[in-house]
Amino acid sequence: MTLPDDLAPLRRKIALACRILANAGLAEDVLGHVSVRAGPGTMLVRCRGPREEGLLFTVDEDVRLVDFEGKGDDLDPWAVPNELPIHAELLRARPDADVVLHCHPPSVLLAGVEDIPLRPVFGAYHIPAARMAVDGVPVYPRAVLIRRPELGRELAEAMGGSAVCVMRGHGITTLGSGEHAVEQAVSRALSLDTLARVSVERARLGDRAAVLPAADIAELPDLGSSFNDLNVWRHHVARLRLAGLTLD
Amino acid sequence: MTLPDDLAPLRRKIALACRILANAGLAEDVLGHVSVRAGPGTMLVRCRGPREEGLLFTVDEDVRLVDFEGKGDDLDPWAVPNELPIHAELLRARPDADVVLHCHPPSVLLAGVEDIPLRPVFGAYHIPAARMAVDGVPVYPRAVLIRRPELGRELAEAMGGSAVCVMRGHGITTLGSGEHAVEQAVSRALSLDTLARVSVERARLGDRAAVLPAADIAELPDLGSSFNDLNVWRHHVARLRLAGLTLD
Amino acid sequence: MTLPDDLAPLRRKIALACRILANAGLAEDVLGHVSVRAGPGTMLVRCRGPREEGLLFTVDEDVRLVDFEGKGDDLDPWAVPNELPIHAELLRARPDADVVLHCHPPSVLLAGVEDIPLRPVFGAYHIPAARMAVDGVPVYPRAVLIRRPELGRELAEAMGGSAVCVMRGHGITTLGSGEHAVEQAVSRALSLDTLARVSVERARLGDRAAVLPAADIAELPDLGSSFNDLNVWRHHVARLRLAGLTLD
Amino acid sequence: MTLPDDLAPLRRKIALACRILANAGLAEDVLGHVSVRAGPGTMLVRCRGPREEGLLFTVDEDVRLVDFEGKGDDLDPWAVPNELPIHAELLRARPDADVVLHCHPPSVLLAGVEDIPLRPVFGAYHIPAARMAVDGVPVYPRAVLIRRPELGRELAEAMGGSAVCVMRGHGITTLGSGEHAVEQAVSRALSLDTLARVSVERARLGDRAAVLPAADIAELPDLGSSFNDLNVWRHHVARLRLAGLTLD
Repeated sequence: MTLPDDLAPLRRKIALACRILANAGLAEDVLGHVSVRAGPGTMLVRCRGPREEGLLFTVDEDVRLVDFEGKGDDLDPWAVPNELPIHAELLRARPDADVVLHCHPPSVLLAGVEDIPLRPVFGAYHIPAARMAVDGVPVYPRAVLIRRPELGRELAEAMGGSAVCVMRGHGITTLGSGEHAVEQAVSRALSLDTLARVSVERARLGDRAAVLPAADIAELPDLGSSFNDLNVWRHHVARLRLAGLTLD
Repeated sequence: MTLPDDLAPLRRKIALACRILANAGLAEDVLGHVSVRAGPGTMLVRCRGPREEGLLFTVDEDVRLVDFEGKGDDLDPWAVPNELPIHAELLRARPDADVVLHCHPPSVLLAGVEDIPLRPVFGAYHIPAARMAVDGVPVYPRAVLIRRPELGRELAEAMGGSAVCVMRGHGITTLGSGEHAVEQAVSRALSLDTLARVSVERARLGDRAAVLPAADIAELPDLGSSFNDLNVWRHHVARLRLAGLTLD
Repeated sequence: MTLPDDLAPLRRKIALACRILANAGLAEDVLGHVSVRAGPGTMLVRCRGPREEGLLFTVDEDVRLVDFEGKGDDLDPWAVPNELPIHAELLRARPDADVVLHCHPPSVLLAGVEDIPLRPVFGAYHIPAARMAVDGVPVYPRAVLIRRPELGRELAEAMGGSAVCVMRGHGITTLGSGEHAVEQAVSRALSLDTLARVSVERARLGDRAAVLPAADIAELPDLGSSFNDLNVWRHHVARLRLAGLTLD
Repeated sequence: MTLPDDLAPLRRKIALACRILANAGLAEDVLGHVSVRAGPGTMLVRCRGPREEGLLFTVDEDVRLVDFEGKGDDLDPWAVPNELPIHAELLRARPDADVVLHCHPPSVLLAGVEDIPLRPVFGAYHIPAARMAVDGVPVYPRAVLIRRPELGRELAEAMGGSAVCVMRGHGITTLGSGEHAVEQAVSRALSLDTLARVSVERARLGDRAAVLPAADIAELPDLGSSFNDLNVWRHHVARLRLAGLTLD
């Protein structure tokens, strides 16, 4: 992903991502943030300003350019997230990632603390979520606030090479790469939420479902990012418009 | 059902059907489609265009005229559903059907994977759903993406002579016939969702309900399509209007 | 309750009652109706017209003046409810009642078919619902469509002297009397729904709650109709206004 | 907290607090109230006027200045809450408190009557709720209407030195102090609701979660009132604006 000279469209896209997460129920009130790698040691990240109103009401100006220590001329009077090390340490540890997303879906909280497995029992209902269950989702087991670099490194280590992670008692982190990195990170967060929601509902019903047979898993093709990520993104942008939450 | 020369009203009706399904919670984001038989070997079907925003935002132009192989002058730059064989093979196998509807209600997903029976334990609460439970709902057991004709034929075979089918780990398919075929297929999808929702809720509560006695089932008359299907359709069109989702 | 010469305000009140029930989730789509005694052997009742859109969209014109057999000059082209005998037989059997209300709350359906007791375990959380639990709620055990007078009489008999009734596998009926009879019948339906919702939720959690001690029940005074019924009515009219569903 | 000469901004803030509680689902229809200490033996408190429409529709004029016996020139034709003793006795017993808030969250009702423990099993998901679970939440065990001073004193005694209290079978009371006392009491009510909602959901799933280890609790800092309370308050004011419920 090459960063454009004019950062305005990227600020806008990050602001939309924050609104989408909140509008889809993956973020309670003021907690959660999204970043984009902006160059060696710098990122654009959703910060908190003096009139902070929560993720659902993010505006372009909330997205600021800072270095990995959270410093930068662009910042004041905004403040970087307490958990900036989530972004800094993952952008450091994962050169393949251009975007880091962190939020708190209630479904994932429940699946995490109650140790509910995220098993592949459905298929064409939601192929990206099904494939995530097949691949497995790593768990970072500590419910701590990631406000120090060493905690961010612990998280990155737990995440390994995966693009998604359950943070038990806390939330999730997802990554995105390439031209549609923001859309991809959002789409992965939505898929993980779908997987967790179905898994929690199934746990309430006895968790009797059989794992899909290999022959059926083979009939669940990756439909590609332009199908999965861009269509899902446009859908959620349209939902923002319907809710009176558009930024245009 | 005789197809009108002017296809515009039918495109509109299919677009409304898609919006109704999504607004009633039977379709997550971009997955689901509705078709109408348009002549020997052709159908009108909800396709995906370059500005696809999901079922809730379907517009008339998303409904295109194609043959059973998914070809046609009317198509470009839209793309037929990956699962066109659901429509083609059912329209082939079921000459009695004029409409094929496919979507992904979360309630049916849960009932399917957790093997929750859809038993007739309620009556006048919802007569069409009660009668569906009495008649029984066939299950297609594979969670695969129906993107090849042989998979479509498997589905048609599992469905037998029924107008509705649970696709385990995937979704549902319903059919409609006659003058109000679209309304009927939508009404059947809504009834199946009601039946599945109540069954899932009951499973959480222990599934202790007794099946209705025959004497009570006899007092649940078929109130006819103009009562069931048209009133339900107008209700959901009015809900679209209230939600700011009308197409007029 | 003395019927005013001008029936317009009463038609309006019945229409609002129908909208309130639907907006509060006590009526799925097109099922449910409310009647007011209009004289010896006549009633005003919510009917279905040629443009029926469901309870949430009831208009004044949907409320028609008919006799207990469902005949009247005022009717055509509206049709009386299939279940008019609910209204006719209760107005006959219960001279103390001025209003009959029938609808299908999902919570009561679940409590009914799964035999979940409606026990008095809460107090000041909702005093009218708590007192309803203390008094007990009769159950009509058949899920039949009440479209014949003898079925209406069965219902009236099951109801006895109570102002509310659970119709197992079907819905509820509530009565109202006096100057604020419509508001009272609506308030009772809402209280029964609250009682059923809490009872169903408690059943999911093990139903471990102890019944309230008599000393605490004695501290739950009847706050009177003007407190309970009129405040609740105005609240729900305001919710209609907020939802864009006002009739003014 | 020094009371301003002009009470208008404080009336507005109390009205907003009532709307926020209702809009966030912590108050059913007409039940709940908020007060602010206004001087020795007096308070501003949310009252019921002749056009009462419920907490969600509170207006500035609903907030009246009365003494601890509920008398005052400012009152008529408003009426003080039946449960004024909640406010009077807590303002008497707790000189550290400037605000008393009372409402009826459904989640807390369920947790209370079903004896569901509010244990610290999550962390950074919601730090104020996690810390509330660590500190413990006192329970007032009676479901009575607090309409006499001795019942209010019972409640104050059960509450001890805590800023929050579960009233079993009834609702909650929270306190606030200092410059942002109203925001703090609202934020505490929202945190208690989050804690109860997660605990109830966990109880449905088996309540298998382990309590957080001390090492992880130590990594959950108090982020301070300006972070917790003011950001949360602004978020909920923005939600009122989005819902068409602003008072400006």
